[in-house]
Amino acid sequence: MLDIAIIGAGPAGLSAAITGKIRNKKVKVFGNPMSTSYIYKAERIDNYIGMLGVTGKEMMEQFTGHAREIGVEIQTAKVIEIFPMGKSYMLNVENEFIEAKTVILASGIAKTSILPGENEFLGRGVSYCATCDGPLYRGKAVVVIGDSTHAEEDANYLAEVCEKVYYIPLYKEIDHLDERIEIVRSKPKKIIGENVVAGLELAESSLEVSGVFIIKESIPTSKLLAGLEVDGAAVKVNRMMETNLPGVYAAGDCTGKPFQVAKAVGEGSTAVLQAVSYLNALNREEKLNL
Amino acid sequence: MLDIAIIGAGPAGLSAAITGKIRNKKVKVFGNPMSTSYIYKAERIDNYIGMLGVTGKEMMEQFTGHAREIGVEIQTAKVIEIFPMGKSYMLNVENEFIEAKTVILASGIAKTSILPGENEFLGRGVSYCATCDGPLYRGKAVVVIGDSTHAEEDANYLAEVCEKVYYIPLYKEIDHLDERIEIVRSKPKKIIGENVVAGLELAESSLEVSGVFIIKESIPTSKLLAGLEVDGAAVKVNRMMETNLPGVYAAGDCTGKPFQVAKAVGEGSTAVLQAVSYLNALNREEKLNL
Repeated sequence: MLDIAIIGAGPAGLSAAITGKIRNKKVKVFGNPMSTSYIYKAERIDNYIGMLGVTGKEMMEQFTGHAREIGVEIQTAKVIEIFPMGKSYMLNVENEFIEAKTVILASGIAKTSILPGENEFLGRGVSYCATCDGPLYRGKAVVVIGDSTHAEEDANYLAEVCEKVYYIPLYKEIDHLDERIEIVRSKPKKIIGENVVAGLELAESSLEVSGVFIIKESIPTSKLLAGLEVDGAAVKVNRMMETNLPGVYAAGDCTGKPFQVAKAVGEGSTAVLQAVSYLNALNREEKLNL
Repeated sequence: MLDIAIIGAGPAGLSAAITGKIRNKKVKVFGNPMSTSYIYKAERIDNYIGMLGVTGKEMMEQFTGHAREIGVEIQTAKVIEIFPMGKSYMLNVENEFIEAKTVILASGIAKTSILPGENEFLGRGVSYCATCDGPLYRGKAVVVIGDSTHAEEDANYLAEVCEKVYYIPLYKEIDHLDERIEIVRSKPKKIIGENVVAGLELAESSLEVSGVFIIKESIPTSKLLAGLEVDGAAVKVNRMMETNLPGVYAAGDCTGKPFQVAKAVGEGSTAVLQAVSYLNALNREEKLNL
């Protein structure tokens, strides 16, 4: 039986895993192949302190290498469902059943619809993060596709660095968009280009841009575990990363904004130390009952 | 006028600063010299993902270098007091007065009494973190000085890796100490040794140990800013790192446990993005009033 099952092999999950391992707990990480992570495709990350100017690929390789070096076991597999079993949890891992005393949910943002070209050009003109990639488009034209007013702040920031910013709202009421930005009310059809992005095809026209920023709210991932409390699209946690279920913690993008590597790594660390405390209390209780 | 004044040049403050700078805000960090940070003296840190097996000195140099590379200004100076001024805050920086629209408190743990030898042997046998330094004392004898029952968990962990663990409680009721640990009810007087720790002098006797772990709760630092709400020793924050005062955020050890680099870095990132949102809203408001 595992002490700690970690769902997700991104920054939050791996951060949790290394501290759990150092604290002598039986830990296992379940996740997708590294290259499917959207961090992996980031062109350049400057704001995870200690690692300046790395690509997403370099960052994920370094994170995964660090975890393996410490002895963390990472299984490339999808966790399909998690069942509460009294004092433990049973994981259905692609129909292999694995029991764990505690669970850390670190499964990231679940995306829904994908624009044609989005996957192919990710990291080559397509970005999910204005803070991360904005500076790469200094003096260039970009388009922002936003599904809520929150995306307007990212667009406003891009207007400070880019030559031209188009904004395609996937909603009705614009709230606070910078006046330098051109609003385009049309449905995005397809991202075009050779090797790198050259433009965005719309329903009746097209835009010549070097960058396409797709800024979406996160989508509920918490179908995984019945009874898990959510807050909008995010798993509901307190400051110690505890969910409403005993022994279940969450960390990283699945707990909501901001979607930042630093936040994910910090939350992973907090979550696992809370799990360690919980496991130690369980052990003391078991000894008393003997 | 600064957009964001950051109090503290440790992991939380520097993490906040780099993202603030990337987001084009006028940012300044106020802090003590790097070498006074207790991280700086850590012998080895393995659980900040991406940087395996670094010393505290290497880590702090890399963090500070990263911030300077991005263009962050760091002023070595003590902020003595912060006064609310309606829509901004006035900082008394060693009697120079500096105004800022927002403030991020990242001042770490304020320690109180210091044991003779504690400063001299820090990083050479004296440690504040069992998770960080425990593995260095595998098979050796150590003593833990704890000022609350929380320290017992650290001692229990050390009992798993060390040959012998003494425990000196600075309080009355032991709660859940591992039975392998020897409780010593005596007042620590002085840490002794040459170059590295060799023992701990007590009121009537002494202990031969290679490591002295001093595990204390944090102490209130929030005398800095009148009206700031605290929760025990920690600055009270919500999940977005907002304090009860508008435009004031907190991050890192000053917000409470766990005292981990990863948590501090993550909270710094979240705090500054919240400050950026607040500044953008202020700007919009100012434009409407023109």
